[in-house]
Amino acid sequence: MFTAQISHVVIEKMQKIVGAAHVLADEENLYKYSHDETEDLSFLPDIVVKPATAAEVSQIMQFCSAEGIPVTARGAGTGLSGAALPIYKGILLSMERLNNILNIDDKNFQALVEPGVIVQVLQEATIEKGLFYPVDPASKGSCTIGGNIAQSAGGLRAVKYGTTRDNILNLEVVLPTGEIIWTGANVLKYSTGYNLTQLMVGSEGTLGIVTKAVVKLRPYPSYNLVMLVPFTTATQACEAVNAIFMAGITPSCLEFMEREALEWAIAYTGSSIPLPAHIQAHLLIELDGNDMELLLKEAEQLYQVVNTYDVGDILLGESFQQKEELWALRRKIPYAVRHNSVYKEEDTVVPRAHLPQLLKGIKEIGARYQFKSVCYGHAGDGNLHVNIIKGNMSEEEWTTKLPEGIREIFRLCVQLGGTISGEHGIGYVQKPYIDIALPEVNLAIMRGIKKVFDPKGILNPGKIF
Amino acid sequence: MFTAQISHVVIEKMQKIVGAAHVLADEENLYKYSHDETEDLSFLPDIVVKPATAAEVSQIMQFCSAEGIPVTARGAGTGLSGAALPIYKGILLSMERLNNILNIDDKNFQALVEPGVIVQVLQEATIEKGLFYPVDPASKGSCTIGGNIAQSAGGLRAVKYGTTRDNILNLEVVLPTGEIIWTGANVLKYSTGYNLTQLMVGSEGTLGIVTKAVVKLRPYPSYNLVMLVPFTTATQACEAVNAIFMAGITPSCLEFMEREALEWAIAYTGSSIPLPAHIQAHLLIELDGNDMELLLKEAEQLYQVVNTYDVGDILLGESFQQKEELWALRRKIPYAVRHNSVYKEEDTVVPRAHLPQLLKGIKEIGARYQFKSVCYGHAGDGNLHVNIIKGNMSEEEWTTKLPEGIREIFRLCVQLGGTISGEHGIGYVQKPYIDIALPEVNLAIMRGIKKVFDPKGILNPGKIF
Repeated sequence: MFTAQISHVVIEKMQKIVGAAHVLADEENLYKYSHDETEDLSFLPDIVVKPATAAEVSQIMQFCSAEGIPVTARGAGTGLSGAALPIYKGILLSMERLNNILNIDDKNFQALVEPGVIVQVLQEATIEKGLFYPVDPASKGSCTIGGNIAQSAGGLRAVKYGTTRDNILNLEVVLPTGEIIWTGANVLKYSTGYNLTQLMVGSEGTLGIVTKAVVKLRPYPSYNLVMLVPFTTATQACEAVNAIFMAGITPSCLEFMEREALEWAIAYTGSSIPLPAHIQAHLLIELDGNDMELLLKEAEQLYQVVNTYDVGDILLGESFQQKEELWALRRKIPYAVRHNSVYKEEDTVVPRAHLPQLLKGIKEIGARYQFKSVCYGHAGDGNLHVNIIKGNMSEEEWTTKLPEGIREIFRLCVQLGGTISGEHGIGYVQKPYIDIALPEVNLAIMRGIKKVFDPKGILNPGKIF
Repeated sequence: MFTAQISHVVIEKMQKIVGAAHVLADEENLYKYSHDETEDLSFLPDIVVKPATAAEVSQIMQFCSAEGIPVTARGAGTGLSGAALPIYKGILLSMERLNNILNIDDKNFQALVEPGVIVQVLQEATIEKGLFYPVDPASKGSCTIGGNIAQSAGGLRAVKYGTTRDNILNLEVVLPTGEIIWTGANVLKYSTGYNLTQLMVGSEGTLGIVTKAVVKLRPYPSYNLVMLVPFTTATQACEAVNAIFMAGITPSCLEFMEREALEWAIAYTGSSIPLPAHIQAHLLIELDGNDMELLLKEAEQLYQVVNTYDVGDILLGESFQQKEELWALRRKIPYAVRHNSVYKEEDTVVPRAHLPQLLKGIKEIGARYQFKSVCYGHAGDGNLHVNIIKGNMSEEEWTTKLPEGIREIFRLCVQLGGTISGEHGIGYVQKPYIDIALPEVNLAIMRGIKKVFDPKGILNPGKIF
C-alpha cells in the first residue's frame, strides 16, 4: 500500500522540524510505541516523532503528504481498539508534548487545551475553579483529551453529562496538506455550515490531527452520594437500571458489574469490600448535585426502587476515602481481568432497557461457542463491556471459532437497536465486524469523506473501514 | 446551472409516485410554497410534491437524480434563513404528509418520528407519558422536527437541554441516489465510524432527505418557576446573564429582550404587563426541576444575583396562565417586529460572557451605518437575534449600505469567538457572509462532503456555500 521507505532523509527532516531529541528510532522506543492496551497487539512504527506545536505538526504533515508516508497519531496509548497502532509502519506521531492547558475561561465555562493533556489533570485544574470537565473514562489518570476525542470516549459520567462528543465545542486540526483549521466556533450552538467538530470527534485520527480543543465546562456539583447495590441475579440488576430512570432519577454514574468482575477487582486490589456468596451482580451508583437534602431524597427514592428487587445490603460510601475505594474497584476491573487471563473486550451498546436481553443473549452465545464472559460497564448508557475470557480455550478455538461468536454478539446488538462500539471505537480490532453495523452505502459515504480530508490516505491507514 | 425543464413527463411521473392529489402546480400553491418567514423573499418552484413515505421519497430522488432536477425539501416554512426556498426552481418537496409519531418508547426515553411532525405535537405527546422533548423553538406551534433537524434549531431551552443536534440519536435519510440509510444507532453513545447523524443535523437539506428521526427524551420536570426581571440598562441585563451562571445556577430558559422588543410585543398582543419608562431591557428566566423547595432556593439565589444590578420590580409568574402570558410575549416578538417594519434578522452567537461587548458593538455599528436594531434572544446560549429595522431607511441604503454594516456585526461575532448563525442556519440570506465565518479551506471541505452525498448537486442547490 505504501511504497515510501523511511530513509535517513526522512529522519533528518523530522529532526530538523521537532529537534533531534524528539525523534526516536531505537528498538526499545519503537516497541514502547508499538502497542496500546488492546490485547497483545504490537506493530512497530519506523520512527516516533514528538512535535510540540501545531506548526510542527503542519510541517510534518506537509512533508509526509508529499512523500506518501503514513502518519498515525497517538495519545497515551490507553486505547482498546488498536486505533493508534501504526499497522502500515511510517511515522508514529506522539502528541505527548502538546500537553498544556492553555486557558480555563471561568466566565464562559470553557477551556482551551492541547491534545496531550491527561484527562484527570484537566479535571483537577477545572475543579480548582469551581468548574468541571465531566468526561471520566476509567483510565482518566493516564489517557489524554486527544485520545478521548479520537475515539469519542465515554466513561463513567456519560449517563448524565454525555460523551466526549457532547463536550467538545471547537477543534484546531492540522489537515494532511499541513493546513490548520478550526472546525467551528467557541459557542454552545452552531448552525454555520456542516458540523465538522462532531464529525472530527470519533474519527480515530483518520481525518486530521487535533492540535487544540475547546472543551465545555459545567459548574462543579458540590455533593455526591455513592452506593454499591448487590443483586442476587445479574438480570435483576440490569432490569433495575431502567427502573431507576423510570422513577425519574438521573444518576451521574450507573455502573453494572457481574460478580466475577468485582470479585477479581477485589482480589487484584486487596479490597475488604464484602462479597457474599449469593450475590451475582452489583450496581455502583452515584448521584450528584448542589443540594444535599435533595440528594438524600433521591437516594431514598432509589432505595425504594432497588428494594423491589432481590438485593443484599446496600453499601453507602460514608467518607471520601470509602467512595474512592468503590471507584478504584470499578476502575481496576479491566486490569484485574487482564491479570486473570488473556481476553478480548467488546464494547457493546444498546438502548438501555434492552440490557437484560443483551446480557441473556451474550450468555447463550457463550454457551454455544463455549466461551466464558465477564460483563461490566456503563449500564446507564446501555453500554456493556463484554470481556471474553480465554481461560482454557485452545489457541485454535480462540482464533477461529471465537470471531463467529463475536459476530453473533454484535448482530444481537444491532437487532436490539444498538451497535458494535459505544466508546472504544472501531480501530483495528473491530474492523472485521464493521459490516454488521454499517451497510456498504454508509461505508462508501465514510470512505468518500475520508478522501475529502485525506486524498492520499496517509492518516492512520487501515483503520475503521 | 440546471438545464432540465419540468415537463409533463415529470409531473406525470410524480403523480404516479405520490398520487395526483399530492402534486401541485397551480399558481396559488406555487406561491404558497415559494416563501418561508425570511423577509419578503419568494422563489416559485416548478411543482410541489408531497410524498407520504420514505419509499416515495426514494423513487422521487432516483428520478430527479437521473434527470438532474433540483429538489428542495421543506418542513413548515417557518425558516429564517431562506433555506427551504427553491431558488433554482425544480421540485419543492413538502414533507408535511410524513407527520406521524411512530413510537414513543417510554422505557428507553426515545421517540421515533417522521419529519413533518409539529414540534409542539411531539412535546405534548411525550409529556403525556411523563417524558419531554426539550427543544423549544419560538415557533414550536407550527415548525416541524424535520425543519429543526435541517437547521439545527435551538430555541428557548437549549441553554439547559441543548439544541436539536444534541437531541437526535439516529436518522433515516434518503440519499440522492434513492438509497435509504440509517445514520447511526438508537443509542446514547456511538463510536462506530464517522458520526453521520450530527453531520446531517444542520446540513439544511443539502446532503439527504430525512424521513425518520429517533429523538432523545428526558423525564419531564414536574415544576418550574418563571420570572421577568426588568433592568434599567441593557448592558446590565447582559452582564447579569453571566453572573447567574457564575452563581452555579443553570436556568432552563434565559432570554434577553431589549425594551422595544417587549414594548412591541405588548402592543401586538394587547398584554397588560407593566413597562415603566426607565426600564431598558428584561431577562425572562425559567428554572425547572422535580423539587419545588430546591427551585425556590434557586430562585432566592437568583434574586440575590440580579439585585446586585439596577433592577425594577421582578414579576414572578404566579399561575399557569400568567406564565403562558409571559412566554407568549416572548414568542410573539418576531411577529411584533415584522408587524412594525420591514426588517432583517441576524442570528449572532458568541461565548455568553461576551454578550455585553456584542451588544455594545452592534449599537456602535448601527450608529455608524445609521440603522436601528432591536435585539432579543437566547442570552443563556450567547445567541442574540439582531433585528435591523428598516424604518425610514431609503431602499438604496437598505440594499447597498446595510450589508456592509451586517458584515461588521458578523466580523465582531467572529472576533469574540462566535459565529454568524447559532440556530437559523446559513441558507440563502447568510450565504454572502459565509466567508467571514469560514475560510476557504473549511468551505472546500464542506463542498467535498456535499459532493460525496450529492455528486450532481441536485439537493437544495445554492445554499450555505
